[in-house]
Amino acid sequence: MVEGNKIICELFNSKVKIKEIFSIDPQKLDRTDVPVTHISENELKKISMLQHPKDSVAVCHLEPQEKSEDKAIQLVLDGIQDPGNLGTIIRLADWFGIEQIICSDDTADVYNPKVIMATMGSFARVNVVYTNLTEYLADTENVNIGTDMEGENIYRFEKPQKLNLILGNEGNGMRPETERLVEKSVMIPRFGKSRSTESLNVSMAAGIILGQLFKEAE
Amino acid sequence: MVEGNKIICELFNSKVKIKEIFSIDPQKLDRTDVPVTHISENELKKISMLQHPKDSVAVCHLEPQEKSEDKAIQLVLDGIQDPGNLGTIIRLADWFGIEQIICSDDTADVYNPKVIMATMGSFARVNVVYTNLTEYLADTENVNIGTDMEGENIYRFEKPQKLNLILGNEGNGMRPETERLVEKSVMIPRFGKSRSTESLNVSMAAGIILGQLFKEAE
Repeated sequence: MVEGNKIICELFNSKVKIKEIFSIDPQKLDRTDVPVTHISENELKKISMLQHPKDSVAVCHLEPQEKSEDKAIQLVLDGIQDPGNLGTIIRLADWFGIEQIICSDDTADVYNPKVIMATMGSFARVNVVYTNLTEYLADTENVNIGTDMEGENIYRFEKPQKLNLILGNEGNGMRPETERLVEKSVMIPRFGKSRSTESLNVSMAAGIILGQLFKEAE
Repeated sequence: MVEGNKIICELFNSKVKIKEIFSIDPQKLDRTDVPVTHISENELKKISMLQHPKDSVAVCHLEPQEKSEDKAIQLVLDGIQDPGNLGTIIRLADWFGIEQIICSDDTADVYNPKVIMATMGSFARVNVVYTNLTEYLADTENVNIGTDMEGENIYRFEKPQKLNLILGNEGNGMRPETERLVEKSVMIPRFGKSRSTESLNVSMAAGIILGQLFKEAE
């Protein structure tokens, strides 16, 4: 389920198939290739997952996404639970042109409506696949990179040609089985003096690390 | 109002004054200098602002924060509306050791409980002041830096000695009055191919830019 004309319109040119749209203002969508049903604001309120529903809701067909070959820079998610974090990470991947995200089976579902909303449409452009992470990480030729306050300073880190950046669960980090398959670790130096500062949110840390990894591409 | 023992305990060593704590498990707090009232889980549910209340709620005394002299790197917020974004930005500032954030009068309130929660305790360590932004930006000796897709590539940007990084409203960006006082602009290059990719969320953009600005401090 995808909500809001702005995102729905992005789907028309994507691999996502829209089955039906329910809209309070069908004329704004102006499509003849998809069935559009005119509904009232009250009806929209009842079907929407949002506190403040937007203009339309689209029901889309779920294509299970299959893993394609490893790319030069991939994200690997080990048990990310928060739908907002997953959505933000997908949006970030899209910004940096990362084509594939590989998730442990217990990572939040990419088709959860909260994830879909947080991606702002990016879910249609990034391949998000679920797999047995231990098997995948043991097999891949990409260098598996974890994050760890004892790791290499990201500002001095020499990027391998092909890499997986692994992001762990919000509370517990990576699983021990995953940690064992990590080949290198990076860290973002903390400039603030306070010892008690909570570590950065996982999606923010991913953004800052990707900002550095893509520096050389410039 | 601050929720959760983890954050409340960080306040004991901060400038924030706790007036009273309501807790379902007062023994865990183990303080004699602050009145702690034992309450039931049901009572906590009624006073908490959270869907899933934590263990305790602390009522704190609000000290209006006063602007101190300009620091070498400051954040300037022009109408940030989302409490989650403001909280995330404060947490990010704390990570990078940024001591002061200067906000337009219409920026979300730092004492909004949703902001407080999103800062994960960082609100006690960063000075967040509200002021007439146009007057402040016209007066400051810091170089005022905006963000703009036409700006200088952040990877090649030469950082001035003292600067204000200005972050605009989530939907509308900076106000025209603010834009007129911008001296330089920076941008994060977009590596993804899709034209339709939404710009990054404001707090994520701030994180990636700060990641670059602090590179030299390493």
